[in-house]
Order: sequence, then C-alpha cells, then structure tokens
Amino acid sequence: MGAFAIGVDLGGTNLRVAAIDQTGKQLETITTGTEVKRGRDSVINEMCLAIQSLANKYLDSRKLVGIGIGVPGIIEMERGTIRQAPNLPGWGDYPVKHEIEQRLGTTVFLENDANAATLGEKWLGAARDVDAVALLTLGTGVGGGIVIDGRIHHGMSGMAGEIGHMTVYPDGVVCGCGSHGCLEQYASATAIKRMALEAIGTGKAPELARAMSENPEFSAKIVYQLATQGDLQAQEIFHKVGQALGIALASLVNIFNFPMYVLGGGAASGWDAFAPTMFKELTWRSVVYRSVVASDAPGHKKTIITNALLGSDAGLIGAARLPLQAAGL
Amino acid sequence: MGAFAIGVDLGGTNLRVAAIDQTGKQLETITTGTEVKRGRDSVINEMCLAIQSLANKYLDSRKLVGIGIGVPGIIEMERGTIRQAPNLPGWGDYPVKHEIEQRLGTTVFLENDANAATLGEKWLGAARDVDAVALLTLGTGVGGGIVIDGRIHHGMSGMAGEIGHMTVYPDGVVCGCGSHGCLEQYASATAIKRMALEAIGTGKAPELARAMSENPEFSAKIVYQLATQGDLQAQEIFHKVGQALGIALASLVNIFNFPMYVLGGGAASGWDAFAPTMFKELTWRSVVYRSVVASDAPGHKKTIITNALLGSDAGLIGAARLPLQAAGL
Repeated sequence: MGAFAIGVDLGGTNLRVAAIDQTGKQLETITTGTEVKRGRDSVINEMCLAIQSLANKYLDSRKLVGIGIGVPGIIEMERGTIRQAPNLPGWGDYPVKHEIEQRLGTTVFLENDANAATLGEKWLGAARDVDAVALLTLGTGVGGGIVIDGRIHHGMSGMAGEIGHMTVYPDGVVCGCGSHGCLEQYASATAIKRMALEAIGTGKAPELARAMSENPEFSAKIVYQLATQGDLQAQEIFHKVGQALGIALASLVNIFNFPMYVLGGGAASGWDAFAPTMFKELTWRSVVYRSVVASDAPGHKKTIITNALLGSDAGLIGAARLPLQAAGL
Repeated sequence: MGAFAIGVDLGGTNLRVAAIDQTGKQLETITTGTEVKRGRDSVINEMCLAIQSLANKYLDSRKLVGIGIGVPGIIEMERGTIRQAPNLPGWGDYPVKHEIEQRLGTTVFLENDANAATLGEKWLGAARDVDAVALLTLGTGVGGGIVIDGRIHHGMSGMAGEIGHMTVYPDGVVCGCGSHGCLEQYASATAIKRMALEAIGTGKAPELARAMSENPEFSAKIVYQLATQGDLQAQEIFHKVGQALGIALASLVNIFNFPMYVLGGGAASGWDAFAPTMFKELTWRSVVYRSVVASDAPGHKKTIITNALLGSDAGLIGAARLPLQAAGL
C-alpha cells in the first residue's frame, strides 16, 4: 500500500489543498472559494473540511502520512504558530499546528511558503536532480528559500532565506523592512511597476506613459510586453532588474557554491528581458561562478541559474513533501 | 586508550604541525623553520618528518586517527589536490593527499585554511556552543568559512564561503577577483592601509601622514592605534570598515539566520574602532537580526557577532579536528 500526504497552500487570497502520493503524483487538488480575509476561524474550518474530504477519499488505497501547510509568514517551529504574517491578521499566537492535529488526528507540519516552494522545486521541479538549491521568488516582494542536503535550511529561528532583503545598493531605494537598496526593491513585480512609474514621471518614457493611461491594470507584465516589443525605456527597467539579480546571485554563488539557483514567481517570466544583463553581471562579479564554469576538472560542474518549473503549485507540492520527507519517503 | 590527530597549518610563510587529542588538548606543536617559498618537495619532506616525529611520540599512549592539513587555496576534494593557491607555486595538480598518505600510511584530509579555522573556532573557540557559524577572517584579504550542523559547508566544488567577495558597494573599489566593491576591499588589513594612504593623499590626514613617514612598516595596526588615540581621519577609516562589515553581515544574517558570526584575523583586533558602526549598520539593515533580538518567544535567541578566540591557532586546531570528526569523535 502506497503513502500519500496532504499539502495546503494558505495564500494571501485563497486556499488550496492537494492530495499527493509518495511519487509526487497529484491525486486531487481542491481550490476553495474561502477568502483568507474572512478570518481565521472560517479558514481553519474550510481547511479542515477540505483536508478531511481528500483524506477520506484516498485513505482506502493509501496510508496518510501527514499534512503540510505553507503559509505566508514566519513560523514558530517549536510552538507551531505563525508570526509576522501581515496577510493573515489574527493568526499570531494561535496554535495552528496543535488545533489542526487535534481536529484531524494527523501530524501537521507548518512551513513558510517560500521555503515550501523551494522544497517543491527540489522534489519535482527545476532542482529535482540537485541536493542544494536557493530559490528566489520574484512576486509582490522577493521571497527566498534555501535547501541544503535535500532539506530546508531554517536557521536558528526559522527566518533563514530572506534573500529579498540582501542589500544590493547600500544607498538605494527605501525598503519596507527598514533598510535601503534591498534586492526586493529592484527585482520584484512591485519594483518593476515602481521603476516604470518613475520613468513615466521623467516625461521620457512615452510608450510606458501611453500603456499606463490605456490600462487601469498597469503592471510589470505590461512593462515586460513593451520591453519585448523593443521599447528602450521598458528594456532599461529590465536591465536594472538583471543587474540587481546579478549582484545578489554573485554574492550567493560566492557564499554557497550551490549547483543551482532557481528564479520563480510572476516576474521571473520576464526572464528573456533581464537574463542577459543578469548573467553578465553575475559572471564578472563572481570568481566562484567563473571558476566553476571554466574548470574541466572532475567534480566541477557549471553553476546553473534557471527558471522555476512548478509555477504556483510549488508551495503546495513542497507542503505535501514535508510529511513524506519526515516519514523517510 | 584515547585518540589523537595531527593538524598541519601550511601557511603562506611557514609550517606548523600539532598533535591534538580528542578532547582538544594540544599535546605538542612544532613550528618549523621551513619557508614555504623553498618549494614543494622541501615543504613536503619537512612536513612528513614533523608529522612522523609527533606521531611516534604519542602513538604509544593514543591511537592516531589521521592527519588534517589546512592550506591557503582551493581544494579539489575528489582528487586530493590544491588549486588556485597563489602562495603555493608548484603545488597545482600535485597529489598532496595521496603522496602523504603513501609516505605515512595514515588517512589525510586536505582543507582550505579559512574553512579549517572555522571548524577550529566551532570546536574549541568562540563558536563551541553553536552548531552553525560563519567566520570572517580579516587579514591580508577577507577569508570566510561556513559551518552548518557542525560540519564545513563545501558547496559543490569546495569553493563555498568566499564571503570576502560578497559585493558590498556595486560601484566600489576594484578587487583582485575581477569584481568591484567586494567586502575584502573595505574590511581587510590591506584595505585599511589603502584607505589610510588615500586619506594621506588628500593632504587632510596629518597624523596618518606623520605616522607613515616615521614608520617604514606603516600598517593597519598603526592606523588603529591612531584611531584609539582620537585621530578623526583614522577613526573615519574604521567607520568605513564597520559600515562594510555591517552591510555584509546584514545580508548574511538575513540569508542564514545562524546563531553566531565570528570575526577573526589580524584586523579583527580593531574591534572597538569598527564595531559600533558595524552593529548600527547591521541593526537597521537586517530585519532578521532585529527580529531575533526583539523576540522573547522561546527558541528566539539573539544573533551573536563576536571575536574569534583561537587567533592563529584556529586553522591548526580545525585541521586536526577533520580526522577526529570523520572518525565520529
């Protein structure tokens, strides 16, 4: 009899629950209409119902090893609570892990969503053939996760992997974290839009200005479309994205010497607009990157920088992986 | 019967060999007059003689578990050779590990000297009570080593831990590695001297200029002495050192969330001149550092930034630790 786990992606907007077997096969996924903003108790109830329904459905043919839940916040591992989750008001100090374990009688693993996504990409995605990887998620912010020896690196209090808050430009743009010049201020979808608005403000970006006036949903995606159509101002923005990513990746490669670094999240789909600058910057800045590329000696492989493969499923898949991994599967 | 190991520090200038028992007790240390510049074969011969003499002396009362050698270069782990070691001309591609194992009939572990020093500090020094630590060695350059779960993190090709080549100022001073604005260009003894010469060049640093003219051995140490005596120009240089260290540490703390980061090497003795600026910069830049400091929750301890304790013995001690660790001691 095979085993399966249930993964939960408690996103900022809605809730997804999937049953995934030990080979990574997604047996079934439920996307609930539950809006996270309706509040904690409502979300917990919906989550437990969805988990229970999936569990009951597959329990006959497989053994349920546990539940993994990815959440947009910092996890108190020892207490099984969530803290510093601005998108989950009312969840702080609530014993999430304990409560769900009580209700469902199964082991629950809480994990930060970026960490879960990294584990997902390591299990079934871009990083499935390597043992160590860093994931950078270019979304509203820049999230990060680190996997070493196949397992999430948590650090002493579960806060490791804040790659989006590496300093890239010491005197750069103010960041929500309190610092200046964080990677997130140059490589997130939010940053791309901000840089476009700055360009429009100079009066020297007519195509960007037109796109904004024509489209109330002006976004990083539209800036990317203009860049691919040859608009120089839009291209300049992605050049800046590539530069910031190259600087941060050069430091990461010099520090970790991992075989792979993966870029995910919505803004990573602007790859062909930022990647040439990113690789150029990375190459001249990182002695480790160049060295590994250059050497033909055995054991010296090229450092791979690549796109994530699992899209928005990465966190869900990684969450399900947690109980499977803990069970040695 | 207890066990012991022999550690070797193959420095840029001379060679030290120590017998250390499993509890970390230094049984005996030999500092040979052998100058490394006399060439590979001469050094290998001297090294083997010293090792043999120590081994014979303690073999009656203890079991020799192996030999660890720390070298200033990048190690080809799989081949047991040294590469990219500018201070060891003629050693590239030479099968060091194999040769010494053949001659002495004992297992040999080769390790980069900064990594060995990190393991030494973890075993018997500043980091003995933590499981994960990064060491920054502020010497001629800025070396680095990373220990996770009590073991050196090597990366895929043994090049991890190049913390000195993290980009701190993207448009900063040119570095020997080919990049601009590496930490090493602001926080090494070499950088302190360079910044002093720059200050003297402006004609606005009379005390530094006088110290230089009076002392042919003008060095970072003299700049430090002037700073402690209240010279504003010398203090400004250590302010820059602290800023660069704070920026780099903020990124490291955000990435790793380790319990401890250790500063070693000669220039780290300028601690009281650079530390106030370093902590200020680190605190406002790192959300993880502030968070961990602020929280009273169980398991949330303060991130410790501290001085190394073992001085120039760290590499020797860490080298001896390698065979002991491999033997499960």
